[in-house]
Amino acid sequence: MAKTWKTEPAESLRVGADVRLADIDPGSTPGFDGDKKYGRQALESGAEQLSELQEKLFADSRAGGGKSVLLVLQAMDTAGKGGIVRHVVGAVDPQGVAHHAFKRPTEEELAHDFLWRVRNQLPDAGMIGVFDRSHYEDVLIGRVRSLVAPEVIESRYDDINAFEAEVAASGTTIVKVMLHISSDEQKARLGERLERPDKFWKYNPGDVDERLVWNDYQEAYEIALRKTSTEVAPWFVVPADKKWFARVAVQRLLIGALRGLDLGWPAADFDIETEKVRLATS
Amino acid sequence: MAKTWKTEPAESLRVGADVRLADIDPGSTPGFDGDKKYGRQALESGAEQLSELQEKLFADSRAGGGKSVLLVLQAMDTAGKGGIVRHVVGAVDPQGVAHHAFKRPTEEELAHDFLWRVRNQLPDAGMIGVFDRSHYEDVLIGRVRSLVAPEVIESRYDDINAFEAEVAASGTTIVKVMLHISSDEQKARLGERLERPDKFWKYNPGDVDERLVWNDYQEAYEIALRKTSTEVAPWFVVPADKKWFARVAVQRLLIGALRGLDLGWPAADFDIETEKVRLATS
Repeated sequence: MAKTWKTEPAESLRVGADVRLADIDPGSTPGFDGDKKYGRQALESGAEQLSELQEKLFADSRAGGGKSVLLVLQAMDTAGKGGIVRHVVGAVDPQGVAHHAFKRPTEEELAHDFLWRVRNQLPDAGMIGVFDRSHYEDVLIGRVRSLVAPEVIESRYDDINAFEAEVAASGTTIVKVMLHISSDEQKARLGERLERPDKFWKYNPGDVDERLVWNDYQEAYEIALRKTSTEVAPWFVVPADKKWFARVAVQRLLIGALRGLDLGWPAADFDIETEKVRLATS
Repeated sequence: MAKTWKTEPAESLRVGADVRLADIDPGSTPGFDGDKKYGRQALESGAEQLSELQEKLFADSRAGGGKSVLLVLQAMDTAGKGGIVRHVVGAVDPQGVAHHAFKRPTEEELAHDFLWRVRNQLPDAGMIGVFDRSHYEDVLIGRVRSLVAPEVIESRYDDINAFEAEVAASGTTIVKVMLHISSDEQKARLGERLERPDKFWKYNPGDVDERLVWNDYQEAYEIALRKTSTEVAPWFVVPADKKWFARVAVQRLLIGALRGLDLGWPAADFDIETEKVRLATS
């Protein structure tokens, strides 16, 4: 892996208050020393690492540990959120994954604060939580489509930062990923869905409506990235025109987050020799 | 696959009102024509089938379909529930799986009817739900440990049958699996957990306490199997001393359940040519 990653994605893909999306090439593969073939190899060997690290996280929780990891995925349609879940998260034992796709809010959800439904889906200790869309929709489509007053949108960034600081303090490592796709690549991917009968169900005419305000979304993303990339909950912009790169990069971010927890296997909380005797005579 | 399965597990492993657990060899591999090596090959090719079938189920739900599948896993400790989840269910896109492990009931859960917490975890349309333990604990440990009065236990079988009939009628295909392990094999597996520091966290001294009432559990299982194996929610007893067999058998049961739904890809609910034009000009 040292050979494939010249620079860790945790460094090279991290963005801050000065991020400019237009300066990040969606077709680039920053930090990765290799092409698609090496990317696939890295994904395969990373799958085992990720799976073992998650098992340690799970074991730690059984021994009383309170740690968890939360992957937040945001992107324009077709950018590959689903592929990340299937090909990266899919390598982890389903018992250790809490996946939640946030849809258009229900009446009940709208009757609460915008973070209410998000709190309800936070991962338990030992789990990797995955948010497919998230509270960020409330400052993305919320902003682009003027779903609430501008001053409400403005107040939400602070609300989000306070919320995420609290979540992080409670033991959850937050990894926020924006999959960064180009408009041309999106057009190609939507076009493919219109050609294949096994993909029709993934096509939604509304996706074209959203394309028509592409620049507004880019602006809304940029504002959100600038205002909410914090020390405890940083944003990573992952170039996503190359699916293989986006997958191996997000996998590497997760591996890094889990390694950062520095977990070993929990010690036995029983007397091993006593138990051997009990078992033998049972 | 026709070569490996002489008889479908849906036939050969299905039990009814006359089942006798003592007559089913936990080390057997009924219906499967091959050894471990063929079992692994079958598991691999089955993984792709299962994954595609689940995607069709998911697509169907997006097009308004209300169908889902529920796998109920019950077993003595170490019988391999976790391995089924990891190696069989793990082949399915995490977006299409709703896994829930039922633990000792909380105070809130105990304050409700025993089926209350189970209803809350039923799979949404398009999903494969997995119950790692279930409402059956309430007639297994509930019976063996006399957690409630005998007449309450007796009434629960009817409650369960009525509940499952309702769930099935709502569009959920129910597959109930008891992993059938021998006492000797359990002893060997628990012993392994006491030898490996990476397995200590899986060992619980309480497991030996349960071994001491092994026969009571076998009896409680047998009664439950006899009383609740119905047309709409049949029980399958899967010999589980050979892990490879249990996995490939449960996989085959799931594949059969999904095939039984006879789903194709949903038709486009939009005009394809119109959308091609809209996309091209977007």
